[in-house]
Amino acid sequence: MTTTTIDHATELAALVGADHVLVGDAINDDYTRDEALTSPAHRPAAVVRPGSTEEVAAVVTWAAANGVPVTARGSGTGLSGACIPQPDGILVSFERMDQILEIDLRNHVAVVQPGVTLAQLDEATKAHGLIYPVQPGENSASLGGNVATNAGGMRAVRYGVTRSQVLGLTCVLGTGEVLTTGGKFVKATSGYDLTQLVIGSEGTLALATEAILRLHPRPTHGATVLAPFTTLDEVAAAIPHIVGSGLQPSILEYIDLVSMAGITSSAGLELGIPQEIKDTALAYLVIVLEGTVASRIEEDTAALGQLLGELGALDLYVLPPSAGAALVDAREKAFWTAKALGANDIIDLVVPRAEIPGYLAAVKVIADDTASLVVGCGHAGDGNVHLSVFQGDPAVRSDVVGRILRAGADLGGAVSGEHGIGTAKKAYLAAIEDPAKLDLMRRIKVAFDPTGILNPGVIFDATSPAEHP
Amino acid sequence: MTTTTIDHATELAALVGADHVLVGDAINDDYTRDEALTSPAHRPAAVVRPGSTEEVAAVVTWAAANGVPVTARGSGTGLSGACIPQPDGILVSFERMDQILEIDLRNHVAVVQPGVTLAQLDEATKAHGLIYPVQPGENSASLGGNVATNAGGMRAVRYGVTRSQVLGLTCVLGTGEVLTTGGKFVKATSGYDLTQLVIGSEGTLALATEAILRLHPRPTHGATVLAPFTTLDEVAAAIPHIVGSGLQPSILEYIDLVSMAGITSSAGLELGIPQEIKDTALAYLVIVLEGTVASRIEEDTAALGQLLGELGALDLYVLPPSAGAALVDAREKAFWTAKALGANDIIDLVVPRAEIPGYLAAVKVIADDTASLVVGCGHAGDGNVHLSVFQGDPAVRSDVVGRILRAGADLGGAVSGEHGIGTAKKAYLAAIEDPAKLDLMRRIKVAFDPTGILNPGVIFDATSPAEHP
Repeated sequence: MTTTTIDHATELAALVGADHVLVGDAINDDYTRDEALTSPAHRPAAVVRPGSTEEVAAVVTWAAANGVPVTARGSGTGLSGACIPQPDGILVSFERMDQILEIDLRNHVAVVQPGVTLAQLDEATKAHGLIYPVQPGENSASLGGNVATNAGGMRAVRYGVTRSQVLGLTCVLGTGEVLTTGGKFVKATSGYDLTQLVIGSEGTLALATEAILRLHPRPTHGATVLAPFTTLDEVAAAIPHIVGSGLQPSILEYIDLVSMAGITSSAGLELGIPQEIKDTALAYLVIVLEGTVASRIEEDTAALGQLLGELGALDLYVLPPSAGAALVDAREKAFWTAKALGANDIIDLVVPRAEIPGYLAAVKVIADDTASLVVGCGHAGDGNVHLSVFQGDPAVRSDVVGRILRAGADLGGAVSGEHGIGTAKKAYLAAIEDPAKLDLMRRIKVAFDPTGILNPGVIFDATSPAEHP
Repeated sequence: MTTTTIDHATELAALVGADHVLVGDAINDDYTRDEALTSPAHRPAAVVRPGSTEEVAAVVTWAAANGVPVTARGSGTGLSGACIPQPDGILVSFERMDQILEIDLRNHVAVVQPGVTLAQLDEATKAHGLIYPVQPGENSASLGGNVATNAGGMRAVRYGVTRSQVLGLTCVLGTGEVLTTGGKFVKATSGYDLTQLVIGSEGTLALATEAILRLHPRPTHGATVLAPFTTLDEVAAAIPHIVGSGLQPSILEYIDLVSMAGITSSAGLELGIPQEIKDTALAYLVIVLEGTVASRIEEDTAALGQLLGELGALDLYVLPPSAGAALVDAREKAFWTAKALGANDIIDLVVPRAEIPGYLAAVKVIADDTASLVVGCGHAGDGNVHLSVFQGDPAVRSDVVGRILRAGADLGGAVSGEHGIGTAKKAYLAAIEDPAKLDLMRRIKVAFDPTGILNPGVIFDATSPAEHP
């Protein structure tokens, strides 16, 4: 440790208390990484654990004055490396700011600190018959991390993503200034929407220290329907019809054959599908209908069954509640299943939902062309495709990922639907995105963070390639 | 006309064609104003009517090079003066860019030019059983104007506002650069959300030349319920219960006694309310339930009736379809009714919905205190209160409006819920909003519009008061 670092630690201890500044070996490995498969871990110069918005502001003000990079961390469950600190930077961990400050039943909002986990919020809202509907598949994820990455998940097809639920923020700019944006209301037109700008900015514009979240009535009844199809094409073609039906599914997932086998076997799931169907089905749809009136769920399930039959489903399985929940749970763990099976990279991109068939066909060509295995599942209703890439050669893998992301962009899509860019997908974004748009984002970053200390090098590099020597 | 202006007109004619540049007396009075009651009209140096994104980009590039202010105009139905041009500036009118480019039934989106009106889009979507659900109360409004002001309206309680429906934009920055943002997908996390930033920026960041809009299944059945209450307090107290019921009304409006009398008499509406109820009721709720299954609407109407009884409604009128539509239509025209009755200003602000009772009590104190008449109605489910201020003395009126807007902010609200700031509410925003937040917005504007030509002086002045000499 250099003298400078020791001085820094002393100065930071004056801001948040000596117990809440970690340096050297006291920094646990967990602080050096997230769940991205391709982003190298970095040990920061110091981990700082502030206890309040004021302490966060003091830390950022100090960092701006000293030119020290600042990376925010919630639970570290991100998939793009956005919370991996810089070696010469500090990691601001929100583990002490983990309070649900308010469940406001009259305005149907929760006010939370960034370290609150989805599991914690779900427990608190359940008691009031309410739900925070963003479920990105990892309940230990923090709300602060969800805000930073605009987390999505399976229920986005009905409720939208984090962006749709956050009504206001307290946040600390790169200048150390504290701003509050939005409020306990669902709309406003009073200047630029700073809330929406900070959401999904992956810690590069501001650190959110408090969030006002929209809550919804919690469904009390539901049905999980599993529909095997002969081809992935038929699955993909069915999706617009289901979205357009007005049945408003809470979940509408496609799962390909390989992913279904992986998910069910790793979870030990037996869904009662006869062997002859398993032999024929190359892809599945999983559809969950939810509501508060049991008879309507029954009626809607029947209507859905008829629609699926017309759309070519081989059969239809209305799963008992426990099996339905187990399947959804296993699907949420698809990332872990793929990782355990040895996936070398995992990507998440979005295309117009009607383009899914053409997109998956393009992916197959790229996979075959490079002798890679690319399999997946996805939030079909949102056009959000999740792919696991099995390709051991890093150079080939990088080429495969670049090509399958570009194929999505060519069909009118975007590089990430919900995982974010971080450092893991930055080079791909730089190659695919309009340089003028990235330059505009750089200028916006300067407006929030004039000294460039907030998560530098995440989403994009500070200078455009043209400015490099 | 100065020589400079003549030169400018010639140069502009080279960009869009001589037929599409108007100067001097050829500029119709309509181009000089919008519907704001307190914003003075200005005649621009020229009106330019581009026919394509490329022409808009050429005009903005020219304006940036010549330091000429640019104001965009759709149908001119705005209520905050945001489309009133500068005397030395040019008005870009989107009347020629009025094409619905695509109704994409597989992705459930419409792609429109900015001059398309809501009426035009409604006609086109109706044919496919779809709906664009933002209905700010003026069907001649353009989609470009709706994007600029983040238009809301009565159905926002169910569907959200313009912000919730716009999936992507083509827009021209103040540099003349053309960017496309978003796409035909409902979510992405691939850098900052530029779509959301441009929406509601009132023409100060970019000119939208194309928009991708989300479409929804069109409801086929509906019921309109009118519920009189003894006091406005009871109405306000009922709102959170109705929102929390899960009945998901499409419309949830409160109308005070004076506004109801104005609305019904100006529309010649006879709703069949007995005189003794009219004598007792000081406020009304109007609730519309919509769906695609008739029996569910009937069941939900019954459930709503029971809930309203428990919440203290004096009676309940389920209006026949024609009367229901007439009431909703008359409510949409409340602005015109207030204007015809001589209202001196009309404001729209938002508070947390549960604060409406306290807020309206505070407004009454201010009105009484200044011998002003302040009456209104509002999108109660959204906490969006619309008030007509009758006060002939401009200085007193300005004080009244300032105080009632500040009272909303003190309860956690915002200066405008859907009309926007424009020039009409700019001084109030400057007085009420955090100066650091306005400074951040100024820096963001510079990122989009470095020479400051896009609608200068709208939302905020270019320099903060501290920078003034």
